[in-house]
Amino acid sequence: MLRVRYQELFDALLRELMKLNFDPDRARKCAQLFAEANRDGVYSHGLNRFPLFVSMVRSGVIDANAEPVMLASHGALERWDGKSGPGNLNAYRCMERAIELSHELGMGCVALANTNHWMRGGSYGWQAAEARVIGICWTNTLANLPPWGAADPRVGNNPLVIAVPRAEGHLVLDMAMSQFSYGALASYRMRGELLPVDGGFDTDGRLTRDPEAIEKSQRPLPVGFWKGSGLALMLDLIAVVLSGGKSTYQIPVDPAREALLSQTFIAFDSAVLGSAMGTSAEEVVDRVIQFFQLPPNGIGERVRYPGERVLKTRKESLKDGVLVDPSIWRQVREGKL
Amino acid sequence: MLRVRYQELFDALLRELMKLNFDPDRARKCAQLFAEANRDGVYSHGLNRFPLFVSMVRSGVIDANAEPVMLASHGALERWDGKSGPGNLNAYRCMERAIELSHELGMGCVALANTNHWMRGGSYGWQAAEARVIGICWTNTLANLPPWGAADPRVGNNPLVIAVPRAEGHLVLDMAMSQFSYGALASYRMRGELLPVDGGFDTDGRLTRDPEAIEKSQRPLPVGFWKGSGLALMLDLIAVVLSGGKSTYQIPVDPAREALLSQTFIAFDSAVLGSAMGTSAEEVVDRVIQFFQLPPNGIGERVRYPGERVLKTRKESLKDGVLVDPSIWRQVREGKL
Repeated sequence: MLRVRYQELFDALLRELMKLNFDPDRARKCAQLFAEANRDGVYSHGLNRFPLFVSMVRSGVIDANAEPVMLASHGALERWDGKSGPGNLNAYRCMERAIELSHELGMGCVALANTNHWMRGGSYGWQAAEARVIGICWTNTLANLPPWGAADPRVGNNPLVIAVPRAEGHLVLDMAMSQFSYGALASYRMRGELLPVDGGFDTDGRLTRDPEAIEKSQRPLPVGFWKGSGLALMLDLIAVVLSGGKSTYQIPVDPAREALLSQTFIAFDSAVLGSAMGTSAEEVVDRVIQFFQLPPNGIGERVRYPGERVLKTRKESLKDGVLVDPSIWRQVREGKL
Repeated sequence: MLRVRYQELFDALLRELMKLNFDPDRARKCAQLFAEANRDGVYSHGLNRFPLFVSMVRSGVIDANAEPVMLASHGALERWDGKSGPGNLNAYRCMERAIELSHELGMGCVALANTNHWMRGGSYGWQAAEARVIGICWTNTLANLPPWGAADPRVGNNPLVIAVPRAEGHLVLDMAMSQFSYGALASYRMRGELLPVDGGFDTDGRLTRDPEAIEKSQRPLPVGFWKGSGLALMLDLIAVVLSGGKSTYQIPVDPAREALLSQTFIAFDSAVLGSAMGTSAEEVVDRVIQFFQLPPNGIGERVRYPGERVLKTRKESLKDGVLVDPSIWRQVREGKL
């Protein structure tokens, strides 16, 4: 990994997007969302995924300038069509709309059909928290996870994002329903490490900590075994029923053609209710975090709240430069995607 | 376990509640919620918990006839005070109100402070699904789960319930954030079985499948290790910020004094948006379930959708009688609680 200045990364991404005929404002937002993923340490959904994104724009899976449109609305609930636009721009727009609704009506939900991969899900959690509202969003994905009790992938790992604002640093949980993503499995394998806990089954159906065995079997574990398997199913169903869009089973299994995703964006503005506590909501959150952060127990890592590591990485990135994969960075910088 | 007719169980519970001076209508709903838990196979939160419930009414932790009141409202978001009333009646009322809001505004959220243990969380998911809306609700609890990386319990296992209606049988997920509840650990121990997967740490900090070792260490595992730990924290924070109520760290750790819980009830009425699909929402759900239910892989159990086992148990219970613990049943039937 190599460090480059954030601005340099952003500029290179922007240049490539402009070459794809993105509208300038949209190109800037899109480049920002990619660059921020690397800035915050989410390498798998930043620059590393940019070449695939570009190829999907070129192949027509992603329509660079398609904007999402509202199809139906009733009070705090809206249904939007993503028109196969860039997943990150669609998601950003829909969370923006959910935030607006939350200011008006206490909460809002935008269900989005026919969109593309949203890249880093945490982006839209941070977006909500920056707007001082609670955000919850999730997406379905292609079928990449065997339900508990089965060997074939029949649910998506359907990432779920939950954000709570706080002055000292927002709390943002960004979790897929597989215990380890394929990106994480590859990282462990390349470092020659075993997983810290069982991450899936080998081809003989035995639980294993060997990342390579899981990549081979294509049988990663759902979070919490039967529990994450059920949760992934429910998230798909809600997104599909509310948006009127496609379910995991209807999404092409090839990542280069993964399209027509369904997503849900929810925001809650607790401020509209006034203060019910002697202290502000954010002070309450601070106290909860203080109680949560105990000394380490010698197993695993120390207790971290969701989002804590992101803030640390962000600070380092802005000071010392953003980490990038050298070969992908060279391709992007030299315009050779 | 012994089988008794549902009506007999309901009548015995009702009689006991009337002795505690419950208003008759409230006693009926409360008895129903307890009896339905056994009917549906959720024994830990039905009759088995009734003696503790009665003792908490007698000790004044639960105020039998306190009704929840709305403290603040803005559009689709409401804040209610549970006034230390029975947790199941409060939860039922708040989900009822969230459902009303969802008909009016597409979605609704009632955040409830100062309530008591809601008993079986799934009840309120089934309630939403019966009303043909999507329901999501969760509660915080006393601190009973060590966050990932710590040995002391500093988060609750904060059960999360998600329900999606379907003509052929609703889908209802009811999952606590610990991989196994203390009730489940005790069941495995009493049957002399190991857990099917690691369920916690022993007193030496090693992962184990021995239920007794986990009961002794008080270190059950969060669902998905670090992921469930983070999710439990976020659920507590949202319930607390929206309701203005107490966080896990403020709740007495003794189960006999566990009180002042905070909860969140959300409902979505997708019907207000009209149909965006060639088929109805429930047909779409059917197709997703068909894809999900693969043949078994020989490991663990066959693929089940959330709620499937409940429906099977319910059918058996109504045909052959509801399973009850013989000694608790004798106490209740003889009025010797």
